[in-house]
Amino acid sequence: MATIKEVAELAGVTPTTVSNVLRDRGRVGTATRERVLNAVAAKGYRPNLNARALVERRAPTLALMLGCITNPFYPEFTLQTNNAARRHGRFLLVCNTDYEPDGGSGFLAEVAGSLSDGVLVANTGSLQVDELKSIQATGTPVVISVWEFPDVDPGIPCVAFDSHKAGYIATDHLLDLGHSRIGALVGSEKNGIHGGRYKGFCDALRARKVKHLKTDARFGTDSYQGGFDAALDLLTSTPDLTAIFVSNDLPALGALNAAASLGFNVPEDLSIVGITNIELTSQSRPALTTVAIPTAEMAEKSVDLLIKLASNDPDAPAMVRTADPVLIKRASTAAPKSRATK
Amino acid sequence: MATIKEVAELAGVTPTTVSNVLRDRGRVGTATRERVLNAVAAKGYRPNLNARALVERRAPTLALMLGCITNPFYPEFTLQTNNAARRHGRFLLVCNTDYEPDGGSGFLAEVAGSLSDGVLVANTGSLQVDELKSIQATGTPVVISVWEFPDVDPGIPCVAFDSHKAGYIATDHLLDLGHSRIGALVGSEKNGIHGGRYKGFCDALRARKVKHLKTDARFGTDSYQGGFDAALDLLTSTPDLTAIFVSNDLPALGALNAAASLGFNVPEDLSIVGITNIELTSQSRPALTTVAIPTAEMAEKSVDLLIKLASNDPDAPAMVRTADPVLIKRASTAAPKSRATK
Repeated sequence: MATIKEVAELAGVTPTTVSNVLRDRGRVGTATRERVLNAVAAKGYRPNLNARALVERRAPTLALMLGCITNPFYPEFTLQTNNAARRHGRFLLVCNTDYEPDGGSGFLAEVAGSLSDGVLVANTGSLQVDELKSIQATGTPVVISVWEFPDVDPGIPCVAFDSHKAGYIATDHLLDLGHSRIGALVGSEKNGIHGGRYKGFCDALRARKVKHLKTDARFGTDSYQGGFDAALDLLTSTPDLTAIFVSNDLPALGALNAAASLGFNVPEDLSIVGITNIELTSQSRPALTTVAIPTAEMAEKSVDLLIKLASNDPDAPAMVRTADPVLIKRASTAAPKSRATK
Repeated sequence: MATIKEVAELAGVTPTTVSNVLRDRGRVGTATRERVLNAVAAKGYRPNLNARALVERRAPTLALMLGCITNPFYPEFTLQTNNAARRHGRFLLVCNTDYEPDGGSGFLAEVAGSLSDGVLVANTGSLQVDELKSIQATGTPVVISVWEFPDVDPGIPCVAFDSHKAGYIATDHLLDLGHSRIGALVGSEKNGIHGGRYKGFCDALRARKVKHLKTDARFGTDSYQGGFDAALDLLTSTPDLTAIFVSNDLPALGALNAAASLGFNVPEDLSIVGITNIELTSQSRPALTTVAIPTAEMAEKSVDLLIKLASNDPDAPAMVRTADPVLIKRASTAAPKSRATK
């Protein structure tokens, strides 16, 4: 492979000038720049990124830690993060942690060593905040990309969306349609990762003085199969529900299928609403009403924040908030039968 | 951060011994190994992977070039590839090429420079074999992970599955059920990437002397929406079809939805079969009958082959074949009505 020296000789400049052109640094005239780029092309020169990383004390990659790439939220988030990273000239190292025997701790430590100059954590999952802090302490910036609780500082720089509002909007939509007997499938324990979404659900009901029976909720359902199983159970034990609030789209799609299996017509017999707005929600039959969270914005703001931290920008904030979630009305929700026929 | 020298001093060994322990090289006694590992833990030492890459003339990552991570085949393939890479102690750099202005050429060149010690290409897409060869020529091994034509040598080491057989098996299944008027939705042009699958379809029909009318096929449908639109068109213009062969699962799921939109009951009025066996096919309603291609095996064999090439193994083959595709019978296929009621 050609060396930078050969390129410099061909262009009649110093290696430093070649380097400046390739990194878009320093003052280089247009004619010189063009001569250098022609020489780079002629020699087929490719800068050695590892050497550059050593010299600049940073690697050209950002790492994204996520639970499992096959949960459809993550590919969508990964794509947005990837594109944001590319706009900053970085490559994205995608790290699946779910299948690591230690829950991703070892992965995180190794990636943060010198393979990447910053770590985005899309799913804290089994990674503890203390672990993230210990990575930070070694000088590698860490950003939590998807933080559900804008009122709580996790102690790590983060991008937060208002999960409580997402739950509230979804529930308000069902109440506006006239539902008053609404079940809930919650992806986590009551105070877990979907706790904000569930609290939004409870608060929306309370604001309209609609009762929420404990027997109408199921927790820990955050997968397609989890939603399917929990909806079967809920609808079998409480067939008079006219709507189900689901704290995430994937279990909502499972619930949609479970309802059909039991002979419920959605939305005529039963309304179902999710949260997130993954691509699949527009492809299910019926298409799923959901509350969109700003995935692309979260990805962009996470990368922006991480790069600020990596360049020791003193103005890097501790938390960046996204725009509010918005209702995406599709075909899985309608007025309950009793009301529709009144 | 601690240096290797400090670790060596604490353990009472030379830095080379520390290095040997961490890389599992050289002869080091059990007691010494333990002392070194304790010192590594005590000092919180993390080897500088970039420096190591320079010294060893290889980076600790493999790159996976793919079309678009949000096409659900790719996250599944990425996960399998990721896990295979991790078993070899490598990290996987996932590179989305669809959104690169140059179709991924620049991305490929930069990644192959020194950021990764090998490149897996899951989707040659707009990347030309010549480009892959020019990367190879610089000493970075390249493997095509998903090659559809075991009888054709692409000129780049590859992992091949028998796409013709996949198309043949899917079609044989429809013929076995008694269908004789079968439409086809093909993800590519006739001789494009899904050409083998389509040829399998045509050959299966020919073997049973079943006619295939040109008007019963649509080409270039390889997306959910593409399958939806083409199925609407096909079923509107040719309503007497009793089955549709679809060369890929994602457009088959679109076709399933299109059929429902037109009032066809699947499988009573219309059978639909796909190819690949992505996770979504077991979650659609009805669940999709499909022909499974060996995704996990392709991922594993690709990584194995790439690592062989990276270590200059003289026995690295030019092509690795996977096991044959297999029919996964689900709920979207049944005997045609006319036959069922006979």
